Amino acid sequence: MSIVNELKVGLRRGDTRALSRAITLVESRLPADRQAAEQIIETCSSFSNKTHRIAVTGVPGVGKSTFIEAIGLRLVDAGKKVAVLAIDPSSSRTSGSILGDKTRMDKLSSHPLAFIRPSASALTLGGVARNTRETILLCEAAGYHTVIIETVGVGQSETTVRGMVDSFVLLMLAGAGDELQGIKRGIMEMADILLINKVEEDNLSKARNAHSDYKTAMHMLGQTEQGWSATVGMVSALTGYQIDEAIKMIEAHFAFLLSSAMYEKQRLSQDLLWFDEAVRQSIIDNYLENVVNRTRLEEQRQMVEQGETSPLEAVRKALNG
Amino acid sequence: MSIVNELKVGLRRGDTRALSRAITLVESRLPADRQAAEQIIETCSSFSNKTHRIAVTGVPGVGKSTFIEAIGLRLVDAGKKVAVLAIDPSSSRTSGSILGDKTRMDKLSSHPLAFIRPSASALTLGGVARNTRETILLCEAAGYHTVIIETVGVGQSETTVRGMVDSFVLLMLAGAGDELQGIKRGIMEMADILLINKVEEDNLSKARNAHSDYKTAMHMLGQTEQGWSATVGMVSALTGYQIDEAIKMIEAHFAFLLSSAMYEKQRLSQDLLWFDEAVRQSIIDNYLENVVNRTRLEEQRQMVEQGETSPLEAVRKALNG
Repeated sequence: MSIVNELKVGLRRGDTRALSRAITLVESRLPADRQAAEQIIETCSSFSNKTHRIAVTGVPGVGKSTFIEAIGLRLVDAGKKVAVLAIDPSSSRTSGSILGDKTRMDKLSSHPLAFIRPSASALTLGGVARNTRETILLCEAAGYHTVIIETVGVGQSETTVRGMVDSFVLLMLAGAGDELQGIKRGIMEMADILLINKVEEDNLSKARNAHSDYKTAMHMLGQTEQGWSATVGMVSALTGYQIDEAIKMIEAHFAFLLSSAMYEKQRLSQDLLWFDEAVRQSIIDNYLENVVNRTRLEEQRQMVEQGETSPLEAVRKALNG
Repeated sequence: MSIVNELKVGLRRGDTRALSRAITLVESRLPADRQAAEQIIETCSSFSNKTHRIAVTGVPGVGKSTFIEAIGLRLVDAGKKVAVLAIDPSSSRTSGSILGDKTRMDKLSSHPLAFIRPSASALTLGGVARNTRETILLCEAAGYHTVIIETVGVGQSETTVRGMVDSFVLLMLAGAGDELQGIKRGIMEMADILLINKVEEDNLSKARNAHSDYKTAMHMLGQTEQGWSATVGMVSALTGYQIDEAIKMIEAHFAFLLSSAMYEKQRLSQDLLWFDEAVRQSIIDNYLENVVNRTRLEEQRQMVEQGETSPLEAVRKALNG
């Protein structure tokens, strides 16, 4: 049996070793691996049912891993298969970082219904986008109904991830002061559910104030494109405070998408967006494969960067030589 | 004298007829006009000094034109040259719409220091971006120190405009309820200055509540990339209530950019962003000029749109046939 067929069969059985190997193919830069990966991915769409894709975002230190482990454990205890993918464009792909991630969610990762995979480092955002999207499809093909994607809410990757998930959960801290939160502007408006984490006895009143302020803020931002009014909650992933309520909030958003038929609509528009972006990126990649094109463009870009030319002139010279 | 030289000289003199003719060249789709336009534009950068580019955004009915006329009149009365450009991707380029716009700001448009130009309809967002950016440069070359760009805050064009201006002013209504505001999510996070307009006697207490809520919201969104904390005010463009204060708020933001050296930094990063986008768009346009390429891509896109294929397969077929 070919490797492709072997992995296909393995995925269908929900075999985690086959899933891991398929993801490694997806992340590979070798053309042969890439081809095998595409063949596997293309059969994945036929597996798909109404899975739930959840992004969990927040700055470093907000407690994303603890939160994901807390909700993940409750979901697997309820018999659901849960996959967790971490995206960190800055991380390097070492066994160290993999071990690091595993350790951070050690209870969840040892559960037979859970699958945890840290991101491969992808040099480009396009790489993050492609790998993550395909890894989600592979997990779903292997029967993981819930796929949780962890991202650091400070960079460009959130926009990409927002375009792949059904529910976007943003974790914040209470009373850290906006200057300390370090969250990028634009991230809050992506949130379907905003949760203040690390709400414990010593900061309960601070958290209540933050809760009220965030509620006002989310209200003023208006409904999402899907017509959802973002919900705001308080949790402590560490003590388990209101974690069940957080799961209910996330599931309420999922139910809203399903009942309003926004689920299919969002998925389809995400497919279309992904198609447009992938086509654009491929056309540009092909153009830049030519070393003359690439050199010319880089030279002109540098001149713009140093204020030595007008962008208009630079564009013309970059493209026409 | 060639038309290009004639217009260059006219621009340098600040002649509004030359400016109008140059803008018409920029908006033209004829290759010869386009070439002439580029020749004029390229000399524009040498004119540039520390001009102030201001976007004024808000849903239809929020009173953008009245507001722009109110602040524009005060600026020209103070001896400043003010250009106003309107972007409305949906408008068609008829003398009717030009007349319509002129009428809406009739006091300002008849002032010798003001120049008002409604947008040409550009079929693509790329067109809006290119035309507007070049029109700004022409206005600045003609000595207009303040360039105000009016956009309807409901579409895609705001992101493009955000990438062209120094100060982004968002107009909102008091107590219209978020469901009535119709503002797209994501627009609020672009604002440097948020003004509640149409604050008159009968809604003063409502406006005060909205003012406080928007202040909370903007605070929770955090600082802009430039390190600015958005300011929130209340005005009535109709009665003139706090219009002077609004101008002070806008000028305070400009002063902040200048004093923090963020002005040059923002302009340079906008140039670079514009260069990257223009290059990408040109590469794609060139690819799509080939009718076989275009047809293949459109067929596959349609299949994705109808859920008949996986995006991955569609991308491969769109690009490889």
